Amino acid sequence: MNDSKNYQQKKRFFNDLLTIYGRKPVLEALEDSTMSLYKLHLADSNKSGGIIAEIIKLAEKRGVEIQWHDRKSLSRISRNSKQDQGVAADIKVDKHQSLDHYLQQKTNERSLRLIALDNITNPQNVGMIIRSVCAGNIDGLIIPRKGCAALSPLVIKASVGTVFKAPLLHCETLAQGLGALRDRDVTICTLSSHAKQSLFEYQAQQSVVYILGNETEGVSEEVQKLSDQQLSIPMNNGVESLNVAVTAALIAFKQ
Amino acid sequence: MNDSKNYQQKKRFFNDLLTIYGRKPVLEALEDSTMSLYKLHLADSNKSGGIIAEIIKLAEKRGVEIQWHDRKSLSRISRNSKQDQGVAADIKVDKHQSLDHYLQQKTNERSLRLIALDNITNPQNVGMIIRSVCAGNIDGLIIPRKGCAALSPLVIKASVGTVFKAPLLHCETLAQGLGALRDRDVTICTLSSHAKQSLFEYQAQQSVVYILGNETEGVSEEVQKLSDQQLSIPMNNGVESLNVAVTAALIAFKQ
Repeated sequence: MNDSKNYQQKKRFFNDLLTIYGRKPVLEALEDSTMSLYKLHLADSNKSGGIIAEIIKLAEKRGVEIQWHDRKSLSRISRNSKQDQGVAADIKVDKHQSLDHYLQQKTNERSLRLIALDNITNPQNVGMIIRSVCAGNIDGLIIPRKGCAALSPLVIKASVGTVFKAPLLHCETLAQGLGALRDRDVTICTLSSHAKQSLFEYQAQQSVVYILGNETEGVSEEVQKLSDQQLSIPMNNGVESLNVAVTAALIAFKQ
Repeated sequence: MNDSKNYQQKKRFFNDLLTIYGRKPVLEALEDSTMSLYKLHLADSNKSGGIIAEIIKLAEKRGVEIQWHDRKSLSRISRNSKQDQGVAADIKVDKHQSLDHYLQQKTNERSLRLIALDNITNPQNVGMIIRSVCAGNIDGLIIPRKGCAALSPLVIKASVGTVFKAPLLHCETLAQGLGALRDRDVTICTLSSHAKQSLFEYQAQQSVVYILGNETEGVSEEVQKLSDQQLSIPMNNGVESLNVAVTAALIAFKQ
């Protein structure tokens, strides 16, 4: 029993780690004392000296484990050989966890306000959404591992570093995540320009998740089928749509 | 007297024209029958055929005057020799006008809600702001000619074409524009992260202009001095600022 519990805890720990890559992002993480680094990964093809020396020195000073890999193994860790520059790091952000784990901890004491992303592929948009959601009144932002832009340096940059403070919840696919939310009686709202009900007039009676669809295609058909409520943002001057990060902000700061 | 009136009208007409440039943006404008084109400018260095032939054919079909220039004169018209690709067009957007002209027409029948930009230099941001403001509940967006990104193809693209529908008001410098607004008893509000009054709780008693400051520096000192009211957006999780286009949207859709 204890072994199984241990295994579950370990699995959760590794699942919740965020792997960042690129020399500058990793250096900045090492310089930030509030950031928990679990492991530093370096390709043995890196030339010594310069920023690599600086990274190693800081990691040693902080007692972060350093692991060396051949170039190919490192790209398997970073999942982005074009941009990792031979450097990656696993970091632990307290506010990042799996949606399942998050829901297990939550009792029903109050209604939750969540936002979920459905195939948002532009890193710039994902970063901007994280920034707005982090600042606004949202309990968690659900980013499925499948379909959405990964938390790459581009996302981190566009989030202006808020990715390390934001309550991010992950799941494999959005459909799976929505299944878990359904079981908890969370109302599933999709944003759609055709909907009659205005976002601003809608008052949720219980926990709610607002789903933002792909920049071009909108909410996918599979997810649309699971929707309890469709909402639109009333627009003037014949404008047809808003930037998805702007929509996220309007939800996050909805009064 | 008539001559002087004529001159004023002409001056206003030319002042309100928007010069767009680049082969694709000009072609798209010609293809859009709702767009009023006043004049097409072409560099005589353009190779004939291809997209240039298409542009000429469409302009002739629509009866748009074509003017040929040497390369140098064309860059004076486009003001961007690096990106004009030898093509520019003056277009008349009904909703673009000078702030002075706009204020002359307005009687005091109801309160105005305006947004003004103070040194917003990133074309992506200017475009996104135009899109959100155009969709939201704002009577006019003031973009000073000095200090802000010009309405370049980058801005047009980021606005997703809404620049041609948006109520844009121009003035030379923001300080001049604010002078004119002051004379009309418009309350000048600046957004600042340090302000105690929340944007969401603030209820304007009369016409109001919300000023958005530069992405890095915030509202300039010169403009800050003219401010009647400072407003902030309350933020969670230690986030220090929002993207300026997101802030514009929160103002434009403020309930």
